[in-house]
Amino acid sequence: MPLTSRHEITVEWGDCDPAGIVYYPSYFRWCDQATYRLFLAAGLKRDDITSGQWKEGTPLVKAECSFRRPSQHGEKLVMESHVSRFGNSSFTISHVFRDASGAVAAEGTETRIWARKDGDARSLTSVPIPDDVRKKLGG
Amino acid sequence: MPLTSRHEITVEWGDCDPAGIVYYPSYFRWCDQATYRLFLAAGLKRDDITSGQWKEGTPLVKAECSFRRPSQHGEKLVMESHVSRFGNSSFTISHVFRDASGAVAAEGTETRIWARKDGDARSLTSVPIPDDVRKKLGG
Amino acid sequence: MPLTSRHEITVEWGDCDPAGIVYYPSYFRWCDQATYRLFLAAGLKRDDITSGQWKEGTPLVKAECSFRRPSQHGEKLVMESHVSRFGNSSFTISHVFRDASGAVAAEGTETRIWARKDGDARSLTSVPIPDDVRKKLGG
Amino acid sequence: MPLTSRHEITVEWGDCDPAGIVYYPSYFRWCDQATYRLFLAAGLKRDDITSGQWKEGTPLVKAECSFRRPSQHGEKLVMESHVSRFGNSSFTISHVFRDASGAVAAEGTETRIWARKDGDARSLTSVPIPDDVRKKLGG
Repeated sequence: MPLTSRHEITVEWGDCDPAGIVYYPSYFRWCDQATYRLFLAAGLKRDDITSGQWKEGTPLVKAECSFRRPSQHGEKLVMESHVSRFGNSSFTISHVFRDASGAVAAEGTETRIWARKDGDARSLTSVPIPDDVRKKLGG
Repeated sequence: MPLTSRHEITVEWGDCDPAGIVYYPSYFRWCDQATYRLFLAAGLKRDDITSGQWKEGTPLVKAECSFRRPSQHGEKLVMESHVSRFGNSSFTISHVFRDASGAVAAEGTETRIWARKDGDARSLTSVPIPDDVRKKLGG
Repeated sequence: MPLTSRHEITVEWGDCDPAGIVYYPSYFRWCDQATYRLFLAAGLKRDDITSGQWKEGTPLVKAECSFRRPSQHGEKLVMESHVSRFGNSSFTISHVFRDASGAVAAEGTETRIWARKDGDARSLTSVPIPDDVRKKLGG
Repeated sequence: MPLTSRHEITVEWGDCDPAGIVYYPSYFRWCDQATYRLFLAAGLKRDDITSGQWKEGTPLVKAECSFRRPSQHGEKLVMESHVSRFGNSSFTISHVFRDASGAVAAEGTETRIWARKDGDARSLTSVPIPDDVRKKLGG
């Protein structure tokens, strides 16, 4: 069973655009934040930078999101996130956003790889997902 | 033939994250900006707010992007954007990002609808894409 | 006595830059969010847009922030916010950010006016701060 | 004579908020970008991360901005930036934003220090501004 994390976000004034609804790149910021929380819930630390240098992490291969119902400033959305697919090095996190009525406001996925930096910041090498990561996330 | 617009963006310090590469929601901001420029190149104005109120525009139904090569602060990326599909009310814009070497750094699509606001900001009603919009964008 | 609101924020991955610390415009986003929460705590709604149109609100005249200690991804900061000055139409909100040790990480102010929109979005007219707003915020 | 750089920015849809005008933290993003361009114009590279690791740069001590006239989506603003004060390790960059009419839309300053990272990302040590930096920026 995949581990599922729940995470409430507040739609901030600055997350919205002149149409008075959420500016769509904000949903992707929230997906990134939700994946971080899913990892925390699993007792994992993604993208450790305490050394002052990023060495290993989970860069994106693909992201997509479908927008069902517009949301406005001040609304609270509940996100549910889990890993829906494990490959060798890549994995997919599925995110659902629900509004106060329980209706799906948006849903999306992120496909990430487990990667190590080998020299400069662009030399990312994919590595197999560590076993304990897989176990802790329920894969 | 669809109208294609070209648009150069500079990867700013604030577009990047602690891994030293572009923070992925930035690509979606750039896609939104590129669609605006495509409309400008077509002599169209998307999301007119000069009245002080948004009344008609092109909200998102879906967005996706694949990330091929990480980019860093200071790089210039050239985007090429065109409408790759026209439905009745919905349409899809395809975006390609190329780095200085000409290699594809990322590519994505936005699916939008033509919509009118009917009351509050969430009451968006899809309407047929106006004929002149379709013609000017090459549909 | 001015009403003080407390509000915890998490430093997100996307709030940070390639130096591995908070990208400074993020602090201003947080100040804006904290002012919204201060108004909520006072039972006030700033910048109502439920009508689908912004008509009255609190645009900025000036903002400043001093940065004492850099913060990193995953840190939690507690903000304390209160109105530190009431003029006729303008007022100043003071914000302090403390890190987990209680040390001041940053502190800043926003000077805003009470304004009404009179026609297009740029025709903002300053109006006297309503009495109930002043009372509820402790002025 | 301080070196002055000029830099045009376009107010993007996503830089604005539901009031239909620029969301104020955007001005600080633009200040950061303008400082980067000022350094480029001087033949300097701020915050080098090509090594994959930030080691030396110009973190902020304080930032402030006054907002004179609201701007809207699609407007072009011209920024003028120069170093208005050199200390031993700290320096102040002044930025002015002008709209198409030439009127000042906003003006602000950033106070930065020259810093070196000594271990983790928070251990920033201020160092004297290198002489060639000072000369190239006109100090």
